[in-house]
Amino acid sequence: MDFQVLRDWHEKFSQELDTVMEFWLRHSHDEEYGGFFTCLGQDGKVYDDLKYVWLQGRQVWTYSRLYRKVPRFRRPELLQAAQAGGEFLLQHARVAPPSQKCAFVLTRDGRPVKIQRTIFSECFYVLGLDELGRATGETRYQKEALTMMEAIVRWVREDPTELGRPQLAGTIPHDSMAVPMMLLNLVDQLSEGDAEAAARFSELGSWSAQQILMHVQRNGTAVLENVSEDGKELPGCLGRQQNPGHALEAGWFLLRYAQCQHDPALLSQTVETFVKQPFYSGWDPEHGGLFAFQDVDRFCPTQLECKMKLWWPHTEAMIAFLMAFADTQDQELLELFDQVAKYSFGKFRDPDTGEWFGYLTQEGKVALTIKGGPFKGCFHVPRALYMCEEILESLIKKTETTGES
Amino acid sequence: MDFQVLRDWHEKFSQELDTVMEFWLRHSHDEEYGGFFTCLGQDGKVYDDLKYVWLQGRQVWTYSRLYRKVPRFRRPELLQAAQAGGEFLLQHARVAPPSQKCAFVLTRDGRPVKIQRTIFSECFYVLGLDELGRATGETRYQKEALTMMEAIVRWVREDPTELGRPQLAGTIPHDSMAVPMMLLNLVDQLSEGDAEAAARFSELGSWSAQQILMHVQRNGTAVLENVSEDGKELPGCLGRQQNPGHALEAGWFLLRYAQCQHDPALLSQTVETFVKQPFYSGWDPEHGGLFAFQDVDRFCPTQLECKMKLWWPHTEAMIAFLMAFADTQDQELLELFDQVAKYSFGKFRDPDTGEWFGYLTQEGKVALTIKGGPFKGCFHVPRALYMCEEILESLIKKTETTGES
Repeated sequence: MDFQVLRDWHEKFSQELDTVMEFWLRHSHDEEYGGFFTCLGQDGKVYDDLKYVWLQGRQVWTYSRLYRKVPRFRRPELLQAAQAGGEFLLQHARVAPPSQKCAFVLTRDGRPVKIQRTIFSECFYVLGLDELGRATGETRYQKEALTMMEAIVRWVREDPTELGRPQLAGTIPHDSMAVPMMLLNLVDQLSEGDAEAAARFSELGSWSAQQILMHVQRNGTAVLENVSEDGKELPGCLGRQQNPGHALEAGWFLLRYAQCQHDPALLSQTVETFVKQPFYSGWDPEHGGLFAFQDVDRFCPTQLECKMKLWWPHTEAMIAFLMAFADTQDQELLELFDQVAKYSFGKFRDPDTGEWFGYLTQEGKVALTIKGGPFKGCFHVPRALYMCEEILESLIKKTETTGES
Repeated sequence: MDFQVLRDWHEKFSQELDTVMEFWLRHSHDEEYGGFFTCLGQDGKVYDDLKYVWLQGRQVWTYSRLYRKVPRFRRPELLQAAQAGGEFLLQHARVAPPSQKCAFVLTRDGRPVKIQRTIFSECFYVLGLDELGRATGETRYQKEALTMMEAIVRWVREDPTELGRPQLAGTIPHDSMAVPMMLLNLVDQLSEGDAEAAARFSELGSWSAQQILMHVQRNGTAVLENVSEDGKELPGCLGRQQNPGHALEAGWFLLRYAQCQHDPALLSQTVETFVKQPFYSGWDPEHGGLFAFQDVDRFCPTQLECKMKLWWPHTEAMIAFLMAFADTQDQELLELFDQVAKYSFGKFRDPDTGEWFGYLTQEGKVALTIKGGPFKGCFHVPRALYMCEEILESLIKKTETTGES
């Protein structure tokens, strides 16, 4: 791969980020109640006005981060929309204050419709509000994010009672990789440029990374989504479940952690175990694209979408490969980035009305034409485009400086 | 369609019922704890030993019903397995007696793993135990079924508190068609040949039929899965959701009700609205097969499997068409039966190892090779084969008697 490949992709990612953000800026703002419509059809038309708290928090994050970090997005309309989204969360996400528990989905005007007995609505509330505080300079947002973070950590590490999950005799206590992944991502977010926060969350970061590493099983050859609390394999479908996109996302979370910790051993273990290996076992050799779910013993998974190609495993793979390449200069990783980016731009991207399709058949045909829905909003696509643009830019600069071409 | 078509299908359905039952008899019995393994791979191998209460109750029903009604299945091994399944349910399904609430899934030895905040585990508990009581002649099973039925009716019509669903300010109270459908099916089950039960459940049957008919919207042109409690359309995806297979299943439940009530107007309304119309709007004109979900305004549904072809809408369509044909002699219905039966036998049936695949792509390719899983067990396929065999037999006898050919 030569210099021109990096330049070509940099231009494509940069243009695509503009197009994608234009889609959300044009179609998703709720001017009346604040917050965002995320159930958007192919052309951006709102087909449902429910507000999913995950997606509200994520869109607040995306707008605030781009405003703060990318000069061409430092536009008042982004900050205003992010702030209106943040205020909507502050006013409506918590179902019954003083409890910190948030709803999963709200009506357009903010009344709770459903609550999940997990931590994820709360995590995206933290992610969005912390970044909004950084973008606006208003510390009240970050203060609220920290208070929520304390509740999340308490639920995960001390007492899950408030989540409301019944304790049943047949439920095997287990560690779902999503939980420490999410925590590690939040530690990264909260610690950026803040020595006090970094110190405060240092032990949590280390704990989260260790918990993620417990999911490496079978002599390092497999990442399993669920393991016992002491890091052993579990029986049945639950224990055998693999999610290549999730492993790759955990991969770049761990790469960032290893960078911060100056831990080359963790970095190289992560590249092998969470970046290359999930790709080689999760890529469909027949039609291309990453499978949504797999069974480590190659039984057929029970998830109906297991062979479908979803957008987010591919955005996370692009970030993971490019970040790992920047860390290692291993050409194989740049080739894998190129392969996934070509597949993604060719199959998921909608050149007609902007943004990406989220759900393809195994063969790569668009299965659902929606651009947003209960689980897809303004997050994975623009985050990957922004992060890859940033990494490509630094790679190009570095190459120019060292005179390579 | 001539007499020979009926005879050919009769032979095929009869042989297929034997093959399908052979699959479950060979692979699904848990000789140690009682009850059934339902997570079975293509060749019948158990890939998970969790026991889903819906599927335990349904398999008890299927075994008991065939034992009681079909002479060639009056075999001790069926009754013994059904009874072991019934005892497993009696011992383990209820999570915390004296509460009637049942688990959704149990460990192999009967410890609760998950509880759903709905009525369906309890409904299939009733269905299985009532039929087991009829097959064995042991009244204790039916007595337990009736006690559970009382709790279900109380939860649906008086007080849902025990189901544990939180009351949230943004949740629109609505009627999900699955609930009155299930109740109408249970009224049919409990009332068979029992004048006292028929009288006891007469008002419930009428209420359930009326609730189902509330789902007919837009001047009779659409059956919607969810409507308001006073029978109005709801906003958003929830309100626009259609499920062609569900409408067809409701169709044959209503046909049986109309037969019992000697109500020709309801019968002919049902044929048009719940049998023909869901087929014509739900059949894929390009690849054949019934879509899993649709949106009445033709927005793209958000369910990832919306365009996939699932086994059970097709089994329910076969029953609905054949039953409606027997009631009306309308040749169009026999042609539709023939069309769906050809598709189903061609695409879902596995000629190699028995039973049917459950999940095909839109194009009709096998997407999941499992024969059983968390939602597919020994129920829809054998129920349809048994019911169609019975209807075909009576049609053939009638034709022979009247001398038609």
